[in-house]
Amino acid sequence: MDLNQIRSELARFAKDRDWDQFHSVRNLSLALVGEVGELAELLQWVDDKEMSYFLESGGRERLGKELSDVLLYLVRLADVADVNLSSAVIAKLEENSVKYPVEKSKGNSKKYDQLG
Amino acid sequence: MDLNQIRSELARFAKDRDWDQFHSVRNLSLALVGEVGELAELLQWVDDKEMSYFLESGGRERLGKELSDVLLYLVRLADVADVNLSSAVIAKLEENSVKYPVEKSKGNSKKYDQLG
Amino acid sequence: MDLNQIRSELARFAKDRDWDQFHSVRNLSLALVGEVGELAELLQWVDDKEMSYFLESGGRERLGKELSDVLLYLVRLADVADVNLSSAVIAKLEENSVKYPVEKSKGNSKKYDQLG
Amino acid sequence: MDLNQIRSELARFAKDRDWDQFHSVRNLSLALVGEVGELAELLQWVDDKEMSYFLESGGRERLGKELSDVLLYLVRLADVADVNLSSAVIAKLEENSVKYPVEKSKGNSKKYDQLG
Repeated sequence: MDLNQIRSELARFAKDRDWDQFHSVRNLSLALVGEVGELAELLQWVDDKEMSYFLESGGRERLGKELSDVLLYLVRLADVADVNLSSAVIAKLEENSVKYPVEKSKGNSKKYDQLG
Repeated sequence: MDLNQIRSELARFAKDRDWDQFHSVRNLSLALVGEVGELAELLQWVDDKEMSYFLESGGRERLGKELSDVLLYLVRLADVADVNLSSAVIAKLEENSVKYPVEKSKGNSKKYDQLG
Repeated sequence: MDLNQIRSELARFAKDRDWDQFHSVRNLSLALVGEVGELAELLQWVDDKEMSYFLESGGRERLGKELSDVLLYLVRLADVADVNLSSAVIAKLEENSVKYPVEKSKGNSKKYDQLG
Repeated sequence: MDLNQIRSELARFAKDRDWDQFHSVRNLSLALVGEVGELAELLQWVDDKEMSYFLESGGRERLGKELSDVLLYLVRLADVADVNLSSAVIAKLEENSVKYPVEKSKGNSKKYDQLG
């Protein structure tokens, strides 16, 4: 699945339903936060050591749904704000490999501005 | 940009840095929330009527960065949890078109369970 | 209502239900994110210019419920982490008045580290 | 520390700085999400078993700051929306004790609508 395919699928979906009027940048940001909240709620009582069991007993499918909801709002938000998400992602991947050189960040989770 | 490409790029990135030890489902969920917080912070004082100006004067690029950060954690989280994100997205798009039939949801923003 | 009263009320509530086992710092953080998501969902389609009408037609009460849910998890989280929330709030209020001197921040929403 | 004291302290703080113009319900909601993001970022790599060490080695104070930031926006948001937060909290505590009767919810973390 290509980011651009999802984008055009969602644009058509909104247009068919006359939803462009609701899809402002801030409306979609709050909608995205709402979906992230559902993701958090799904995982809130699942301790690290229970995660495998949770995923195998139905949790994986539910997690896939929540992640998709977040992704769909994210892609739609980018589209509405005229952000080229593919280009932005490529640029960010490059930025990250500069910020986190293998030799300095190997095996530690420090933020780039706290790397020695 | 394909979701699967991003996925394998991030898997390699983590492996090179020995970061798999940090990338549990819940750690990545909290990291995703952190990035969503940065997205919200970027937009918090930008009223609806100032959005175009904001986007045109540097905001679009910053927004692209924040959205990418969210997307990268989201894709990584899906991978670590063994969720096939592309399939989940396709299933969700279908689910949404059933939940929100054009004739019922045209021009209104009600949730599917409140459609008449 | 005093923060300390809420704290002890919630501690008793959890103890009576044998919920201390679920109330780890990270579990409660994710639960708090879940409630913030509900707050965002409540407001996601309410444009700035529709806010008064929304609040007056039932929205205020629903908003009060969502804000309470966030507050209750916040107070409980502080308690479980042995954070003295009242002291922390007082310290933060003082910190903010130093960070944002009236003469510099009057009428602008810039972050303290971007004040001239 | 009383919720009402915090409320009036923040109202004065905003008035002195002419910040009422920025403090709309949605602006403050996004600001709150931003602070919740900082809370999540603080905890993102702290596994459950490392939490005590984290709290004792400086984490508790940082957590107190982040929780205060969230609380201050929450109280300010309630004030701006004319929500009586103390009353709402009291009502919510009562609601919760009805939703979660001790005998049914003892030792389990199920949501009220899934209690047997």
